[in-house]
Amino acid sequence: MTEPLKIGIAGLGTVGAGVVKLLAEHNNLLAVRGGRPIAVSAVSARNRKKNRGIDLEGVRWEGDPLKLAEARDIDVVVELIGGSDGVARKLIEKAIANGKHVVTANKALLAMHGAAVATAAEKKGVTVAFEAAVAGGIPIIKALREGLVGNRVRRLYGILNGTCNYILTTMRETGRDFDAVLAEAQAAGYAEADPSFDIDGIDAAHKLAVLTGAAFGAKVNFKGVYVEGIRHVSAMDIEFARELGYRIKLLGLARETPYGIEQRVHPCMVPLDAPIAHIEGVFNAVVVDGDFVGTTMFQGRGAGQGPTASAVVADLVDIARGRSMPTFVVPASKLTTAPAAPMDRHVGAYYMRLMVQDRPGVIAAVSSVLAKQQISLESMLQRGRSPSDKVPVVLTTHENEEAAMRRAAKAIGRLDAVLEEPCLIRIEKF
Amino acid sequence: MTEPLKIGIAGLGTVGAGVVKLLAEHNNLLAVRGGRPIAVSAVSARNRKKNRGIDLEGVRWEGDPLKLAEARDIDVVVELIGGSDGVARKLIEKAIANGKHVVTANKALLAMHGAAVATAAEKKGVTVAFEAAVAGGIPIIKALREGLVGNRVRRLYGILNGTCNYILTTMRETGRDFDAVLAEAQAAGYAEADPSFDIDGIDAAHKLAVLTGAAFGAKVNFKGVYVEGIRHVSAMDIEFARELGYRIKLLGLARETPYGIEQRVHPCMVPLDAPIAHIEGVFNAVVVDGDFVGTTMFQGRGAGQGPTASAVVADLVDIARGRSMPTFVVPASKLTTAPAAPMDRHVGAYYMRLMVQDRPGVIAAVSSVLAKQQISLESMLQRGRSPSDKVPVVLTTHENEEAAMRRAAKAIGRLDAVLEEPCLIRIEKF
Repeated sequence: MTEPLKIGIAGLGTVGAGVVKLLAEHNNLLAVRGGRPIAVSAVSARNRKKNRGIDLEGVRWEGDPLKLAEARDIDVVVELIGGSDGVARKLIEKAIANGKHVVTANKALLAMHGAAVATAAEKKGVTVAFEAAVAGGIPIIKALREGLVGNRVRRLYGILNGTCNYILTTMRETGRDFDAVLAEAQAAGYAEADPSFDIDGIDAAHKLAVLTGAAFGAKVNFKGVYVEGIRHVSAMDIEFARELGYRIKLLGLARETPYGIEQRVHPCMVPLDAPIAHIEGVFNAVVVDGDFVGTTMFQGRGAGQGPTASAVVADLVDIARGRSMPTFVVPASKLTTAPAAPMDRHVGAYYMRLMVQDRPGVIAAVSSVLAKQQISLESMLQRGRSPSDKVPVVLTTHENEEAAMRRAAKAIGRLDAVLEEPCLIRIEKF
Repeated sequence: MTEPLKIGIAGLGTVGAGVVKLLAEHNNLLAVRGGRPIAVSAVSARNRKKNRGIDLEGVRWEGDPLKLAEARDIDVVVELIGGSDGVARKLIEKAIANGKHVVTANKALLAMHGAAVATAAEKKGVTVAFEAAVAGGIPIIKALREGLVGNRVRRLYGILNGTCNYILTTMRETGRDFDAVLAEAQAAGYAEADPSFDIDGIDAAHKLAVLTGAAFGAKVNFKGVYVEGIRHVSAMDIEFARELGYRIKLLGLARETPYGIEQRVHPCMVPLDAPIAHIEGVFNAVVVDGDFVGTTMFQGRGAGQGPTASAVVADLVDIARGRSMPTFVVPASKLTTAPAAPMDRHVGAYYMRLMVQDRPGVIAAVSSVLAKQQISLESMLQRGRSPSDKVPVVLTTHENEEAAMRRAAKAIGRLDAVLEEPCLIRIEKF
């Protein structure tokens, strides 16, 4: 019998408990597939008394998670505490310093300190694996670092936050507005009591920054991500999207441009013939466009106990088998530090919804502002008539530079007949 | 500078030439990502004079591919000749016997001799990698053997043959019949002059057998695959599918059943709300349903120079980095030899299209046969009336055993008023 791979798990929330369950249930299967058993030596969590539905018989309980980074009977520290700093960061740093491998689901930490962690791990010759940090059970990190390693990635984009996708899907299916659907999602446990992390796009931006690192061999640059959430998407916009042949999705997108690496998270109008338009509810998907492979898409559950545990255990089996890989596809010293492409330079098509007073001359005034910014209109749509009352007008444009579009939106917002801030949603063509 | 990984390529058709191109174009990128360069020491192909648009300067030409398995300056033999036996098989066997790693795109060979190859490779401690054998550039073998390794696979299914999917998609889009679309596909180079390998389901069955091995840790069992092609799918069936809310796809499906491992390749009615219904044209997709991860889907181009080269090179980088894995997820000695579940025992819903004489009493006669076989009808559809002429009648059933369904179809085919063999297409629920 070969020596087992000995692990310590910090954090026994949904994911931690799932890992313990999976390891117990597939104990024999994993010993055969991984070449040796995976054994939990110790765990650490805040509340020892909580019933988690898992068997911890014979597993050491550590009150202080940092002890896991010191224990002699631990080869791998599994960090499932979360948070970009604090205990999680200390634990990972200490584990690496002590020559232990690290498996983590912590996107926030990797988004903030990814390059530093990679450098430290490389110096000590240990692995930092993080399949569970992005897109739950979808093995997208493995696809980027290994399966598609022969490609220069031209572009990647994905639905990276299940809460937002659930809300947008439900809004479309029910016709209800954002606030009502959010409240329902909170009641159902699909959204947090404080939902801003999800619905303001921060979580998706963390994941995008990590994906970008692994896809382009670039220093993780969270600050370089342009972020917009979904609060301003109304039922009306979703209805207009339907009419125009789109679905609204919160996407994270990254590509190399002449100005550097562009990373952006924001609601998008996605054409119905794009496969990603059909990823609904809590599902996630990532599209990778490589120069040899062409377009590939990976989809599955983006969160939850089973999928995330599946990802953590895949990382553990890699380590059990001695398979390793630089953290972000290339050695830390070779990570590119391409600048973040400024959002002002982004070129794309736009949807703009205005609430205007229904009176003659409004469209002429709007058109004149657009013409001044050299923005070429693709379509203009006014539904219903309601003289001297408020009506929506929707414009779509051909490709323009973001800066010009913003100047136009600002000027249009100042017109007398325009009664609200224009709602701007980017149209993505794939 | 680390020692390069030295390879020999046998076969310089579309894929072989693509591999040479990719290695040349991403030479530096791969050296960084793989930890060392990948160098082509020698190649072998039938026609030395053919212009393949690749630079072979400084690369040794071997007239006899078997020489690649002997050469001292070759660590990995890349077998891209094809065919389940003959030279390809000899080359792979010899390469393994001489302690060389093997990368191959040869699904036919793996389908026929997969377990023997795995055993031989294990004995010599070499890797046999075959990402390119199934679903082109989609890293599905890596997903099954590594990314989803923590799961017991409950079921997998996929669109594994681009030619069939192209034909079925075009039939649906144009309303034309099978023969016309096949002829067009042949003219366009999407189908071979002798198309039977593709359209009779053999190619998909090879790929399914290989996938099944990697997913279930089972001895590859091509003979255990039930195979039906797409020749009998008519424009009429495609139109009825649309009416009923389905699309017709040639799927390969595998799952564990109480009777053994069920493997089947045949046209399926796929509900429109299943993501795989939307995989169109030459694209491939594989759905893996794992007990922890849930349902995941991987899609991309299933063939072509770039995608297949991408898969071959991913395998080469794994070898360059010293990453290895048992050929079919578990050591060859532990491969299960579960029997093939007999197709007669398959339980599912069915679509049956009849061409009947439009006269009273026909439906009663058909219903009586079905009742005798205890088959419960879900719906019955007759479009148009044409007294005493030929009209189609479509039945759909609830879940029944295949054997009963076949007995019913046979008996119905013998009824006086039934003018052609009933067309039976299985309905898949996901």
